[in-house]
Amino acid sequence: MRSVSVIGIGETRMGKYPGTLKDMIREAGEKAIRDAGIDKSLLEAIYFGNFNASYWSGQSHMGPLVAETLGLDNLPTIRVEGACATGSLAFRQGLTAVASGLYDVVLVGGAERMTHESTPRITEGLASAADVDLESSVGATFPSLFALAANRYFHEYGNCRDAMAMAAVQNHANAYLNPDAQMHKLITVDIVKNGVPVAYPLTVFDCSLVSDGSAFVVLAASEIADRISGGRIVDVIGSGHAGSSLQISTKNITSFIATTNAAREAYRMAGIKPSDIDLAEVHDCFTITQIINTEDLGFFEKGTGALAVAEGKTARDGLVAINPSGGLKAKGHPIGATGLSQIFEVVTQLRGDAGERQVKNARIGMNHNLGGSAATCVINIFKRRD
Amino acid sequence: MRSVSVIGIGETRMGKYPGTLKDMIREAGEKAIRDAGIDKSLLEAIYFGNFNASYWSGQSHMGPLVAETLGLDNLPTIRVEGACATGSLAFRQGLTAVASGLYDVVLVGGAERMTHESTPRITEGLASAADVDLESSVGATFPSLFALAANRYFHEYGNCRDAMAMAAVQNHANAYLNPDAQMHKLITVDIVKNGVPVAYPLTVFDCSLVSDGSAFVVLAASEIADRISGGRIVDVIGSGHAGSSLQISTKNITSFIATTNAAREAYRMAGIKPSDIDLAEVHDCFTITQIINTEDLGFFEKGTGALAVAEGKTARDGLVAINPSGGLKAKGHPIGATGLSQIFEVVTQLRGDAGERQVKNARIGMNHNLGGSAATCVINIFKRRD
Repeated sequence: MRSVSVIGIGETRMGKYPGTLKDMIREAGEKAIRDAGIDKSLLEAIYFGNFNASYWSGQSHMGPLVAETLGLDNLPTIRVEGACATGSLAFRQGLTAVASGLYDVVLVGGAERMTHESTPRITEGLASAADVDLESSVGATFPSLFALAANRYFHEYGNCRDAMAMAAVQNHANAYLNPDAQMHKLITVDIVKNGVPVAYPLTVFDCSLVSDGSAFVVLAASEIADRISGGRIVDVIGSGHAGSSLQISTKNITSFIATTNAAREAYRMAGIKPSDIDLAEVHDCFTITQIINTEDLGFFEKGTGALAVAEGKTARDGLVAINPSGGLKAKGHPIGATGLSQIFEVVTQLRGDAGERQVKNARIGMNHNLGGSAATCVINIFKRRD
Repeated sequence: MRSVSVIGIGETRMGKYPGTLKDMIREAGEKAIRDAGIDKSLLEAIYFGNFNASYWSGQSHMGPLVAETLGLDNLPTIRVEGACATGSLAFRQGLTAVASGLYDVVLVGGAERMTHESTPRITEGLASAADVDLESSVGATFPSLFALAANRYFHEYGNCRDAMAMAAVQNHANAYLNPDAQMHKLITVDIVKNGVPVAYPLTVFDCSLVSDGSAFVVLAASEIADRISGGRIVDVIGSGHAGSSLQISTKNITSFIATTNAAREAYRMAGIKPSDIDLAEVHDCFTITQIINTEDLGFFEKGTGALAVAEGKTARDGLVAINPSGGLKAKGHPIGATGLSQIFEVVTQLRGDAGERQVKNARIGMNHNLGGSAATCVINIFKRRD
């Protein structure tokens, strides 16, 4: 398979978007195409991630909607969905298509509009990503499912509630420096611990946000990337995709096998090890999720992920910068766009364009995106050209 | 890219399914794996098509649900959606993945559960595949959109209402011989014309069905297909995918550019011409849709598609057998499964297993699957091994 590069990126600000789903798509899509510096006519296909506009906005079939909105009417399009991993799944489909030689240049995007909905409708829409027969229908929404993981984790490795809260504190601090982030508010461990309880031990400050947002990237075969684009190229050097059972009753919830397996595939393809990663956008739907994932990605020993945050190892100047964007927790979590917004951040960092939140000497970056109770995982690894 | 083959197929009977979405998936998926004669452990990924279970059953994130239901828990999975072309889009993603060398053997499936819902909920769920802002919200549901196409077609090419009705008559006659079909009822042109009006000139007998159903196929790299499977192999020799604007106001609705463009890609890849096709499952959400598509696929001159049906050219012993399964009209239309059920029929015919409805000397077959107002089109071409 051919090598593939990211040649353009674009995203909206996350949070309450002052416009329609189409407006959001137009803004982020046009930014990415402009950033790539290519003529639209080079684009051959669109891979689009949306989680649940059919429920929240009554709109399915968003592939052609995106094409039309961007003036690319007759392109082949597809919408993909894998809960909160939706954006990265779209990316992986586009990546495979270019790597295979099917297309040379494709547009990959994602969007979600959520802030117009009531909390019950948001909760219900999100709960559709769990097993509806066995989990959602008996009231097991995602905060409660991940609260189970947190409690079990405390049972196995000791109560690290304060250290875990530091993940939220750090992500808020990073988001404070990110103009696209939804939250620009510094918080403390006490604020996290004393937040409105959601599902013990998680408070509202352990939970990611309800957001509108859209993000797009332009992918091209590496062999033509230089020739067609403005030259601000970042190469995709690894990709992994794995799954596990939809419902949690039969699986380990303090280590996510989907993350472990996807990471193995991505590291092998890239020919690197965890310690080669300079920065990683890691799925932090809840603080506990980030902690467990950073261990499963091989950054830290099992049971030490929270301590690593408290010790500053995940800070922008730490061992591996985790969520320099602010993460799902503080940058925002517009489901279908989240994975692509992670990639937006990784590429921005590898280009050296992250301003005040720049990770120094960032050479290799990763995005890690999870769906449901870790039932879907997609990981991509990116490298700047030296 | 490598050549890819279908090594296993399975489907449920279409219509009202006596069980859950999971039951349906289990039945069709296990049939396909058994038919392939392979050990489950060879399967490396699942590509799954579902249109709107998030709306009709409150269930998103169906990739891992399918994996778990079939005892394939840790496989990477994806759900794709492109309105009524959903099943074929899933197929094309699986095809690309195997052709690229990413995986050697994958499972592709689709399912939809619809009969448990009320007519207004079904109509609303289906209308989400049109442009919600510009079409659905002002009452333009799909029967009315395709009724516009029919009226415009009559305006351009003359009123062929009786000949058009023959498409429904013929599809019902084919379904009569298909044990998996929802309808086993022979009809006449008079019955079609005097049916309950839906949107002039379309009556209920011009419209496809509301169905439950699931269909799966197993795909393998052709180079290993013989070695791993029972040997009842059909090769995929062409594939095409194209789009057009989601809403109809700016496009030609008596010729579908998505069909024309996808057909060009598929024919070119296969190195064949329309007259080489022995049988085709052609998207017939409405009788007029089948007529227009058979012209755009190059089987008949523009304006002569209805006459061709009336003259018997699309019968099982005609020039090109159209919808020997009974089509969406009479076999059924469980949205996410439809494209894969079309492929089930094509493979069954090319294997010579179609019993009473067998198309004689079937050597090359096509499935043609459309989404929305022809805003998404996927075509695949299959060939039996001589």
